Amino acid sequence: MKYNEMSRQQLEQEFATVKKEYEQFFDLHLSLDMSRGKPGFENADLSEDLSCAVNRETGYKNADGTDCRNYGGLDGLTELKQLFGAILGVPSTQVIVGGNSSLNLMFDTIAQAMTHGVCGGKPWFTEEKRKFLCPAPGYDRHFGVTEYFGFELVTVPMTDEGPDMDAVEEWVKDPTVKGIWCVPKYSNPEGLTYSDAVVRRMAALRPAASDFRVFWDNAYAVHDLYEQGDSLLDFYAECERAGNPDLCLLFTSTSKITFPGAGVAAVAASPANISWLKNRMTYQTIGPDKINQLRHARILRNMDDVCAQMKRHAALLRPKFDCVLAEMDRQLADPGIARWSKPKGGYFISLYVPNGCAQRVWKLCADVGMVLTKSGATYPYGKDPDDANLRIAPSFPPVEEIARAAEVLCVAVRYAALEQLLS
Amino acid sequence: MKYNEMSRQQLEQEFATVKKEYEQFFDLHLSLDMSRGKPGFENADLSEDLSCAVNRETGYKNADGTDCRNYGGLDGLTELKQLFGAILGVPSTQVIVGGNSSLNLMFDTIAQAMTHGVCGGKPWFTEEKRKFLCPAPGYDRHFGVTEYFGFELVTVPMTDEGPDMDAVEEWVKDPTVKGIWCVPKYSNPEGLTYSDAVVRRMAALRPAASDFRVFWDNAYAVHDLYEQGDSLLDFYAECERAGNPDLCLLFTSTSKITFPGAGVAAVAASPANISWLKNRMTYQTIGPDKINQLRHARILRNMDDVCAQMKRHAALLRPKFDCVLAEMDRQLADPGIARWSKPKGGYFISLYVPNGCAQRVWKLCADVGMVLTKSGATYPYGKDPDDANLRIAPSFPPVEEIARAAEVLCVAVRYAALEQLLS
Repeated sequence: MKYNEMSRQQLEQEFATVKKEYEQFFDLHLSLDMSRGKPGFENADLSEDLSCAVNRETGYKNADGTDCRNYGGLDGLTELKQLFGAILGVPSTQVIVGGNSSLNLMFDTIAQAMTHGVCGGKPWFTEEKRKFLCPAPGYDRHFGVTEYFGFELVTVPMTDEGPDMDAVEEWVKDPTVKGIWCVPKYSNPEGLTYSDAVVRRMAALRPAASDFRVFWDNAYAVHDLYEQGDSLLDFYAECERAGNPDLCLLFTSTSKITFPGAGVAAVAASPANISWLKNRMTYQTIGPDKINQLRHARILRNMDDVCAQMKRHAALLRPKFDCVLAEMDRQLADPGIARWSKPKGGYFISLYVPNGCAQRVWKLCADVGMVLTKSGATYPYGKDPDDANLRIAPSFPPVEEIARAAEVLCVAVRYAALEQLLS
Repeated sequence: MKYNEMSRQQLEQEFATVKKEYEQFFDLHLSLDMSRGKPGFENADLSEDLSCAVNRETGYKNADGTDCRNYGGLDGLTELKQLFGAILGVPSTQVIVGGNSSLNLMFDTIAQAMTHGVCGGKPWFTEEKRKFLCPAPGYDRHFGVTEYFGFELVTVPMTDEGPDMDAVEEWVKDPTVKGIWCVPKYSNPEGLTYSDAVVRRMAALRPAASDFRVFWDNAYAVHDLYEQGDSLLDFYAECERAGNPDLCLLFTSTSKITFPGAGVAAVAASPANISWLKNRMTYQTIGPDKINQLRHARILRNMDDVCAQMKRHAALLRPKFDCVLAEMDRQLADPGIARWSKPKGGYFISLYVPNGCAQRVWKLCADVGMVLTKSGATYPYGKDPDDANLRIAPSFPPVEEIARAAEVLCVAVRYAALEQLLS
C-alpha cells in the first residue's frame, strides 16, 4: 500500500515497525561504505597480472623498442595511444596518455585555460564572470574543479536522454559560458547513456564563446554490467561531421579496468586541441610513467582484452547491483516513496527519495555505520534544491555485506519518509 | 703551450692537426648523447627489485594496513613521507608524496600561485610585471616553467658558493619578485653545493613580497659520486631558525635513485605551505599512484637502503665522470682555452669555452653525431650572454663510448677556439 494512501494510524503503525527495524542496526556495529565509486578488492584481484608484467625477463621495451626506464615520451606509449584511441573513437595520433588520474588531466586543462586561454583565446582568468554548465545530478568532483577556479556553476537539468539540450543551447549563447561537464555513458550518478539525439545536438553546438569546450568524461566507456550494454555515439566523429572538431575534449582512464589510482588516464581531441595541451605539458613534465603504461599495454593488448576484463568485472559487480535493486523493489516499490535508476553499466544507482528527505536518509545511515555520498553532492555547490537525490555506489562493499547495506538504506528511506508524513 | 701564446703559424699548424682529428669522426658515424641528465640503463638495472616488489604474494598493504589498490590517500604513503622527510630534513607530516615528476610538482605549485595566490595572497596572474630570480648557469626546465607563466626571468650570477647573495638580497626588495630557483646540492649544471653562508643568507631573506618563495629543488640530495661528498645545511631548519619557515618549498624525487620517469616525487614545506598545497590537490586528484609508492617503500626502506643504492649508482657513474674529466685535462689544460667544474656528485660538468664559442662547439659536435645540451640552455631565455657555457652530461653514454664522447667534445672545443683565434 502506498504511504500517501495510508491513514494516520496506519502510518504510525508502519513507522513503529520501521523504527524497530532501524534500531536493531545499532547493535550490529556496522561499518559499510556505499559512498564512492570504488571497486571492491575482488575487482582489483582481476588485475594481478599487471603486478609483474614488466621486469628483467619480460623486458622493459615497448613495441617501438623504447626502453621505458628513462625520461621522455611526452604523450605516452604508442600501444596505449592506440588502445585509448579505440575506446574514445579518435585516431591514436590525437591521444595523449598521461598519469594515474583523468580528473588530474581535466583539472590541468582548466588550469591551462585559466592562465593561457584555449588555443590562442584569452585567459579565462580575465573573464570576470565565467560560467560552466553542470548537468545535475552529476559528478561532484567535476563541479568542484570549476568551483575551485571561480566559475559560476550553472545547473542544467538531466532528462532521461542526457542533459536538457534546450537549456544547453540557450546557455551557450552567453559568451561567458566556457564549457560543460558530461559523463555521457552510464552517467554519474544517473547511470544513463546520452541518446543519439543528445550527442548530435551537443556536437552541433555553436557557442558564442569560441573557447567553449565540452568536457566529455567517458569514464565508463566500456563498463557494462550486462551482456547487452548501452551504446553511445562516437562524439568526436559527430563533432567532425558537424564541422566542430575543436569543440570537444575526451577523457577516460583504466581506473576501473585495472587498479583505481594506479591506472593510466588519457585525453583525446582534435589536432589543434592536442597541440594546445602538449604546449603546456612540454613545460610541466618530462613525461608520464612509461613503465606503468607498459604494464597496461601488456595486459590490455587490444579491445578484446579490455572486453574480456570488463566481463570479469561485471560478473563481480552485477550481483551487487542486482541485490540493491531487488531490495529497493522489495522495500520501496509498494510504499511509492522513491524512484531510482536501473543502470546497465557504470558504478551508481541514482535514488530519489521524497523532497526534503535525502539529508535525513544520509544521517540515518551514518548513525548506524553506513557511509553514503553526502546528500546534495550530486548538485552544484553541494546543494540539491529538492534535497531528494542520493548517489548509491554498490561496488565497494563485499558481496556478503551488500544485502545488509541495501537493507539499511531502504529502511532509512522508509523511516525518513514516514517521519516526514507524520510531522 | 697556451694557444694565446702561440704564433699565427703555430696556431695554423695546430688547427690543421685538430681539423684532421675532427674530420676523422665523420667516418665513425657516431651516435652519442651527452645532452640530458639521463642515467644509463645499467643504472636502471640497479632497480630491478622494484619491478615485482608488489604483487599478490608480497601483498598490497603498506605499513598502515592500507590496501594500495584503491583510490585515496592524498599526500602519499606514510613510509615514503618518512623517507622523503629524512632526505629533505622536514618532519614527515610536512611532506606530500606525489607522482613521477618533481618538475610537475613545481609547475603545479606555480600554476596554483598564478590563479589562487600563495597562502591567501593575491593571484600572481594579477601581478602584471612579475619576476623570478634565476641563478645562472642553471636548469633550463626551471627557467622554462617561469617563462611559460609570463615571468620576467632575472639572471642572478652564480659564484663558487652558490647564487650571488648580494644580488639576491637586492632583488627581493622588489615586491614583484616572487621567487627564486635553486638546485642547492651538486647544482645543475655547475655541480657545486651551496655554502653554509649562502644557505643561511637565503634562509634569512626578508623579501618585500610576502608571497615570495624559494623553490629549493634538492634533486641531487643523495647523489654523491665519491666516498666523500659535499654536505648541505638543512634549509628548512635554517628557515625556521630565521623565523622564516614559510619561505621555502623543498622538492626532490627518486628519478635518479630508481627509474627516471617512473619514480616518486615529493614536496616538503611548512605546515602553512603544505595546507595551501593540499587545498589545491583536493580538487586536482583523488590521490597519487600508491602502488608505485609501495614498490619504492619496499626497496628503499630507510636512509641506509638509499645510501647503499646511491653507492651502486656512483660506482657506475664515477668512471664516466673521471673519463671525461681526464680527457679535458689531457686536451684542454695545456691550451688554456677552457675551464670546467669538478663535481663531487650530481649529473653534470659545467664547461666554459672561450666567449663566443659555445654554440660553435655544440654545432661541431652535432655534425659528427654527438648531441649536447643546446648552448645557451643554462641561461634564462636560452641566451648565454657570453656564449661560453656548455652543460656536459656524462651519465647516459655507455662506459665503452664515453672516452670517444669526451674526445669528440674536447677536439671540438680546440677546433672552435683555434678557428676563433685565426679569424
